[in-house]
Amino acid sequence: MRIVITGVPGVGKSTVMEGFARAQGLEIVNFGTLMFEAAKAQHVVTDRDQMRSLDPAMQRTIQKQAGQAIGAKASCIVDTHATVRTPRGYLAGLPAWVLDAIKPDVLVLVEAPAEQIHHRRTADPTRARDQQSAAEIDQHQQFNRAIAAAYAMHSGATVLTITNPDGGLEQALQQLRNALG
Amino acid sequence: MRIVITGVPGVGKSTVMEGFARAQGLEIVNFGTLMFEAAKAQHVVTDRDQMRSLDPAMQRTIQKQAGQAIGAKASCIVDTHATVRTPRGYLAGLPAWVLDAIKPDVLVLVEAPAEQIHHRRTADPTRARDQQSAAEIDQHQQFNRAIAAAYAMHSGATVLTITNPDGGLEQALQQLRNALG
Amino acid sequence: MRIVITGVPGVGKSTVMEGFARAQGLEIVNFGTLMFEAAKAQHVVTDRDQMRSLDPAMQRTIQKQAGQAIGAKASCIVDTHATVRTPRGYLAGLPAWVLDAIKPDVLVLVEAPAEQIHHRRTADPTRARDQQSAAEIDQHQQFNRAIAAAYAMHSGATVLTITNPDGGLEQALQQLRNALG
Repeated sequence: MRIVITGVPGVGKSTVMEGFARAQGLEIVNFGTLMFEAAKAQHVVTDRDQMRSLDPAMQRTIQKQAGQAIGAKASCIVDTHATVRTPRGYLAGLPAWVLDAIKPDVLVLVEAPAEQIHHRRTADPTRARDQQSAAEIDQHQQFNRAIAAAYAMHSGATVLTITNPDGGLEQALQQLRNALG
Repeated sequence: MRIVITGVPGVGKSTVMEGFARAQGLEIVNFGTLMFEAAKAQHVVTDRDQMRSLDPAMQRTIQKQAGQAIGAKASCIVDTHATVRTPRGYLAGLPAWVLDAIKPDVLVLVEAPAEQIHHRRTADPTRARDQQSAAEIDQHQQFNRAIAAAYAMHSGATVLTITNPDGGLEQALQQLRNALG
Repeated sequence: MRIVITGVPGVGKSTVMEGFARAQGLEIVNFGTLMFEAAKAQHVVTDRDQMRSLDPAMQRTIQKQAGQAIGAKASCIVDTHATVRTPRGYLAGLPAWVLDAIKPDVLVLVEAPAEQIHHRRTADPTRARDQQSAAEIDQHQQFNRAIAAAYAMHSGATVLTITNPDGGLEQALQQLRNALG
């Protein structure tokens, strides 16, 4: 089973994902890392910062290669984003050609109350993130739900929403195990 | 005109659909029943419970065959779900390959206030359904709207939302007749 | 960069679009006008009212031709709708085959508070529009966000939401310039 796990920054995606992967003995593959490796193999980049300046056609080629590496696995957890916030707006993390390559079985949206995410981001001094208001974080999570529905339409993957509120990690992991364990 | 009618359990979809079909002299085809018939014809199942354990590739084949049987009709009402709630999350009732086969003209979402749906489900002793809270029912209806938008993008079908609140059946039927009669 | 700009009637899309196009020296192409020109070239219509009665297959052909004319441009602003409200429900303004032809880089949703849009429509005597309530306008804007997510999934375009509240034109233009200038 190929399980894609997504969540906005500060939602606690990594903790949930790693706890679940450990419990199930599943490998986590990071989509961005696979893209970087595919780009290095193509000799189009040497360091990760250059990934942002790939031309769109090369970007798609690299995305497809990274996706195919995942699609070839029988089981894994894919660490990626439903959408990425860019200066030009929300960018799909799993556009049609990536879904076609990965062929995911399940798409997990890890969510938390926007106010709590806002607070977690503010309290984290190591994150040099531009500050979004709680309302903007809420909007981002809503948009991720909408695009998750489009991913479900295109790929046939199920969409599972897991809530990870403050103090709720154990329950979030339990929900994941109940659904996918 | 091929009209797909959807709605979460307890929304009163059957009543609305049957009232409309009778008024318009339209045939209702149940997508699940057509899938079962296609699977029996392929000799992969003998009873309906086995439908859940089809392997994914066979599932798609069966879905396409059922969809093509509908796409061959000039006019009908298709009884199905925008999404189905499964243990692994929401599953698209009309994934891309089903839309390509059915070629729907209109997708109807029958909706009702989540609190009323919750009450109808609780009051119905014949339905052995796991209980969702009103908030979860609301979330399900929201997700169905989002996936309906994806269906509209992929197929070109229009999306029509009809409200069927308590005591509002006649008005719901009137809305359908005004739009599609 | 091909930028598609959308917004419900009364949101002030034209003003925002024209202000931005002037500032950037970008051409605005109206998708409906391009469709009409493609249909005239095909000798299937002579006036614009006939566009509504094209059969579905011809409609798609015309849409693809109009889309290809845009896709051939290196840069432009496309004036169109995320969805159009029709008697049969919401119709996708950018179905899959149109996105494939246009290959948009950015999709802009110009939004405003539903109450303000409602008030602007009511106050405009030149618009012979059927009156929607503020709640219906809100629902239309929500549906447009959902379909924008589907457009992002299919095309890879980013989705940028710009707010144009009463008295907020300069700020809306500033947001657009910051994001896309």
